Amino acid sequence: MKRIGMLTSGGDCQALNAAMRGVVKSITTCTKDVEIYGFLDGYRGLIYSNFRMLTSADFSGILTEGGTILGTSRTPFKTIQDPDENGLNKVEAMKQNYYKLQLDCLVILGGNGTHKTANLLREEGLNVITLPKTIDNDLWGTDMTFGFQSAVDIATQAIDCIHTTASSHGRVFIVEVMGHKVGWLTLNAGMAGGADIILIPEIPYDIDKVVEAIKKRHENGKRFTILAVAEGAISKEDAKLSKKEYKEKMKNYKYPSVSYEVAAKIQEKTGQEVRVTVPGHTQRGGSPCPYDRVFASRLGSEAGKMILEGEYGFMVGYKNREIVRVPLEDVAGKLKAIAPDASIVKEAKLLGISFGD
Amino acid sequence: MKRIGMLTSGGDCQALNAAMRGVVKSITTCTKDVEIYGFLDGYRGLIYSNFRMLTSADFSGILTEGGTILGTSRTPFKTIQDPDENGLNKVEAMKQNYYKLQLDCLVILGGNGTHKTANLLREEGLNVITLPKTIDNDLWGTDMTFGFQSAVDIATQAIDCIHTTASSHGRVFIVEVMGHKVGWLTLNAGMAGGADIILIPEIPYDIDKVVEAIKKRHENGKRFTILAVAEGAISKEDAKLSKKEYKEKMKNYKYPSVSYEVAAKIQEKTGQEVRVTVPGHTQRGGSPCPYDRVFASRLGSEAGKMILEGEYGFMVGYKNREIVRVPLEDVAGKLKAIAPDASIVKEAKLLGISFGD
Amino acid sequence: MKRIGMLTSGGDCQALNAAMRGVVKSITTCTKDVEIYGFLDGYRGLIYSNFRMLTSADFSGILTEGGTILGTSRTPFKTIQDPDENGLNKVEAMKQNYYKLQLDCLVILGGNGTHKTANLLREEGLNVITLPKTIDNDLWGTDMTFGFQSAVDIATQAIDCIHTTASSHGRVFIVEVMGHKVGWLTLNAGMAGGADIILIPEIPYDIDKVVEAIKKRHENGKRFTILAVAEGAISKEDAKLSKKEYKEKMKNYKYPSVSYEVAAKIQEKTGQEVRVTVPGHTQRGGSPCPYDRVFASRLGSEAGKMILEGEYGFMVGYKNREIVRVPLEDVAGKLKAIAPDASIVKEAKLLGISFGD
Amino acid sequence: MKRIGMLTSGGDCQALNAAMRGVVKSITTCTKDVEIYGFLDGYRGLIYSNFRMLTSADFSGILTEGGTILGTSRTPFKTIQDPDENGLNKVEAMKQNYYKLQLDCLVILGGNGTHKTANLLREEGLNVITLPKTIDNDLWGTDMTFGFQSAVDIATQAIDCIHTTASSHGRVFIVEVMGHKVGWLTLNAGMAGGADIILIPEIPYDIDKVVEAIKKRHENGKRFTILAVAEGAISKEDAKLSKKEYKEKMKNYKYPSVSYEVAAKIQEKTGQEVRVTVPGHTQRGGSPCPYDRVFASRLGSEAGKMILEGEYGFMVGYKNREIVRVPLEDVAGKLKAIAPDASIVKEAKLLGISFGD
Repeated sequence: MKRIGMLTSGGDCQALNAAMRGVVKSITTCTKDVEIYGFLDGYRGLIYSNFRMLTSADFSGILTEGGTILGTSRTPFKTIQDPDENGLNKVEAMKQNYYKLQLDCLVILGGNGTHKTANLLREEGLNVITLPKTIDNDLWGTDMTFGFQSAVDIATQAIDCIHTTASSHGRVFIVEVMGHKVGWLTLNAGMAGGADIILIPEIPYDIDKVVEAIKKRHENGKRFTILAVAEGAISKEDAKLSKKEYKEKMKNYKYPSVSYEVAAKIQEKTGQEVRVTVPGHTQRGGSPCPYDRVFASRLGSEAGKMILEGEYGFMVGYKNREIVRVPLEDVAGKLKAIAPDASIVKEAKLLGISFGD
Repeated sequence: MKRIGMLTSGGDCQALNAAMRGVVKSITTCTKDVEIYGFLDGYRGLIYSNFRMLTSADFSGILTEGGTILGTSRTPFKTIQDPDENGLNKVEAMKQNYYKLQLDCLVILGGNGTHKTANLLREEGLNVITLPKTIDNDLWGTDMTFGFQSAVDIATQAIDCIHTTASSHGRVFIVEVMGHKVGWLTLNAGMAGGADIILIPEIPYDIDKVVEAIKKRHENGKRFTILAVAEGAISKEDAKLSKKEYKEKMKNYKYPSVSYEVAAKIQEKTGQEVRVTVPGHTQRGGSPCPYDRVFASRLGSEAGKMILEGEYGFMVGYKNREIVRVPLEDVAGKLKAIAPDASIVKEAKLLGISFGD
Repeated sequence: MKRIGMLTSGGDCQALNAAMRGVVKSITTCTKDVEIYGFLDGYRGLIYSNFRMLTSADFSGILTEGGTILGTSRTPFKTIQDPDENGLNKVEAMKQNYYKLQLDCLVILGGNGTHKTANLLREEGLNVITLPKTIDNDLWGTDMTFGFQSAVDIATQAIDCIHTTASSHGRVFIVEVMGHKVGWLTLNAGMAGGADIILIPEIPYDIDKVVEAIKKRHENGKRFTILAVAEGAISKEDAKLSKKEYKEKMKNYKYPSVSYEVAAKIQEKTGQEVRVTVPGHTQRGGSPCPYDRVFASRLGSEAGKMILEGEYGFMVGYKNREIVRVPLEDVAGKLKAIAPDASIVKEAKLLGISFGD
Repeated sequence: MKRIGMLTSGGDCQALNAAMRGVVKSITTCTKDVEIYGFLDGYRGLIYSNFRMLTSADFSGILTEGGTILGTSRTPFKTIQDPDENGLNKVEAMKQNYYKLQLDCLVILGGNGTHKTANLLREEGLNVITLPKTIDNDLWGTDMTFGFQSAVDIATQAIDCIHTTASSHGRVFIVEVMGHKVGWLTLNAGMAGGADIILIPEIPYDIDKVVEAIKKRHENGKRFTILAVAEGAISKEDAKLSKKEYKEKMKNYKYPSVSYEVAAKIQEKTGQEVRVTVPGHTQRGGSPCPYDRVFASRLGSEAGKMILEGEYGFMVGYKNREIVRVPLEDVAGKLKAIAPDASIVKEAKLLGISFGD
């Protein structure tokens, strides 16, 4: 008998259900002697022992469903070790519930924050397997995370739609793309959508270079310019600030988000009308794209295999087109960002895309 | 020989190209003895005699293309009669160019503002045929405008994506939908996306009723609530203000748009996290949906027939599933809004949708 | 207390779930005193008393789901009155189950065959309300059926995809579109996809006219031709045959479907390579388009209202953009086909589309 | 001055335009001193000196366009060296045109057949760079070909649509997927669409195993079964035949394609109704998916870089997430098939998918 706890944590994304289906299908293909405990709303479910017993039927037909049948919540890692509002030690509570339910292991699906907590639980002696879930693709130790390609598809669709409007009106348009502190999503959606300028956190921008690129297009007879701007994009000046200085500055930030700042500066320096579009949370939703469905299923399948083998303490990752097992301690606390001189950046520049640097 | 001037004016939308292709195809099917003058960037092209000669080849393959091959610009009607910055009388300039090019007629594609100007030109003695283009569906005299259904599709897709995120996180989500001063787009996208609360300009909302609806859902065990809010939605208090008072109030409006105000009020009254998504200009872009392609082609076909018959002074409209000719003077200056007691509103309420009234 | 039986019958299509959700939501918005009996797999469920009790929860989240949560089956009308293989009188069995469960009414969703049976049950004294479901749009008494627009979207997508291949290779391509004995689906998808030739059952084709249209395109420098051919398209010769003669002929029909016959004839007469694509059952599947979701919800809402009012014996239909009640006896046994001289056909011809007539 | 010849050959696919745009953009970003000769309809254009001079403007806005602006044709390799119907030596003609136009190099986009010819031209002394284009993903030397992911998306959409119909009716459905002699497309679309049984050329099927899998699903209470069958799928018996015997057998093949044979056998052995859907050429068409747009642009960018460097004789490929240069002689004549014991196959089997082996 295997007793498996499962939870999804952090911002939701596409293919969470596909991945969980993969885990359960691969186990039930081999044995019927299994119990699945689905903890609700991320780590909260484990802390407060809020769970549902799940059967194969719960995982039938969810391959294509967005969201997560278990619900999720963003539990900031820094507070995991602090007691909750009633004085409960949260880590201790998770351990107790794990042992009380006699679980063999926990399968945890999440991003960077989630992995820190997962590794903590591993250090506390629990058997943990994680799956790399995030539209940001910023998890260390894996070439790819699921949700990423689906988000690229949605962000690209937004740029596609803006393209026809931009060219009809001859305007400057900014599409703000998610991605947290890294530029994977913006770079890929920007290249796919044919953006002329791409601003990402890894390559701080100089607004004068941005304006120059817009003017150059204008001189070449192009009526419009499209910018794909990462929600985490940062100017060269701001990038030089210390963390504390930056925080101080952002306290009185007058823009809803960074794109509006870029828009204001361009408008000021060129006199041109600039429009901002923010697809926002739509980038996390909807049915996963076929790529993510296959990818998440494969990851889930490997996780199931590991459970049958009793091998724990790993994130299931992707390296050189193969599914691999990456020690959790190597993953936790690291960020996978784009190197400013990565091949893909050079290729993009060769295509005439400006990064404002 | 027929000499036809054509222009697209106002905010761009889907199926403009399809409609123009329809006009030209239906004429060239009957005669090769025709010249098409495509004025660039809306009325500006006619005012400043900025045009391209177009052939059949220009209209080949554009049925599915978003935007407009002629470009467009928003020329506010109220300034059309005023001289431009160089003292040029704009109406006079349009007339002169019309006669200088010996045009038989103008085919003008646009929305409400555009129709006012088109009717003015008609009054000045020009031969004018118009086509009803707007994602807002607010043109009087026609059951439907092209662009509308395509915009419904895009706005609905946004709500669909938000749905999975809303249900995973158990949050309140607002999707702000375009539509100018009317609620057609929001009502249809809201019903199609399964929104729980729909706020439209025609039915001013009471924030307490909105909050009540959210609480009721919560009591019924629903984790999340989705609101489709029209960009023109208005509260009961604001609806009572005079135009002048309202304008005064909006001068110091602290929100980027009305959705953020609704969000702030809900958050204040419920303590729940509320997220806002603004698909914005994506709603105007991309390939027209099949419905709009057929519809715009049919309208264009009828316009072509009218030109061959030499019948002018009409908007080509849609009534009871038939293409009809509506006198331009009946259309100009009127707005088609949703009656607060329209059947579709009653049906929506019966489905459990709250309008906050 | 209202006891409502519900069933979906005939070929499945999009928005069946949306329509049923509409019925149940509109009733439960007004009263909790209701029981829903969901009969499984169409009339079979009613005949053999195979049903599930349904609650509001069953209808939550299904607005966007394709297919039908009740399952369906094609029960040819002509055998409904005959006894089944065990000698059971099927009509009698349905009546008995209706009375045994003390139902107040039956809500039946289906197309032409389904409506014949529904009307029969009405004649037998049962309270019946029907909803017009079919991708064929061939139901008499309503301007529109749900499923139709979704199917148009899918068929159009297929033509769109074929377009790029056809133009790259310079070939003749046939896309076979569903629609049973009428051409609504083919005509609309054909116009939306920019098909050059459209063959529909209502306008029998002359293969020489078809070939002529292809040659004319070739002479005009067009590399390719796309035909949208209805699965029910028929040649002028075959249209002259008596029903018996035609049946006899089809016994030895050597083609998988009519498109392959058209392809073979074109290939024979022009020497050009002709490719056939058959999207087939994909046209019935997938998530309903926004238009169908709104439309089916509105129909369902009205059905719910009728149940609350105790008004039976009607199909809920659509006339001049309003939801209406159409006496079932007026609907049953009739077919809504395209008039060969309908405005839309004339408009299509003016656009240069050949119907091969 | 660089003189570059470009051509697209073989079956068309998505992202051909994106790739060519990438080549040209990356060159014109660095130098304006370039001439682009676009040969029409594949190698035919080079043989008969049928070309268009292309400028930057020709490549503007084609990133998202399906098909190829140059046209293509399938020129079977085996006849390339034979004289044409007028006795012209085709290879010699290509060489002469190359030298007459004083080309610096040829950029050739194509699949397996195309690469054989490209390598032949290289052996004849021409400067050649190739780009790996095929929905089949069967080119040796690259992890991925462009067009593949777009085709996966379309084939998956077809399975998604069939899913709702299959589950509503409780039937067995076969979706026939393209892919030529290999199973990449079918395996990925099958896994993405949740197919229960996947038949690919690399793993010959035993019809009894297929039937067994269907029956097992039925015993487990599943109403329906979906098979993704590769157009090149083959039974165990047929796989044992010699090439000659197989060819002989196929001469009298009575099915339109292999799926119909599988369907007939299942129907015969189970008595269940089996439906076949063939998305066919739609899998090659439409706008490239975002993945393919980025990928093809990157490949094109590298090709442009190679031209600027004067490095020839390579296919631009993809290895371990980096763009690489693969000697043409290593690529030509080889096929990249799925190893029957590849990880992805094992993972799929663990997920409960039957390969009929």
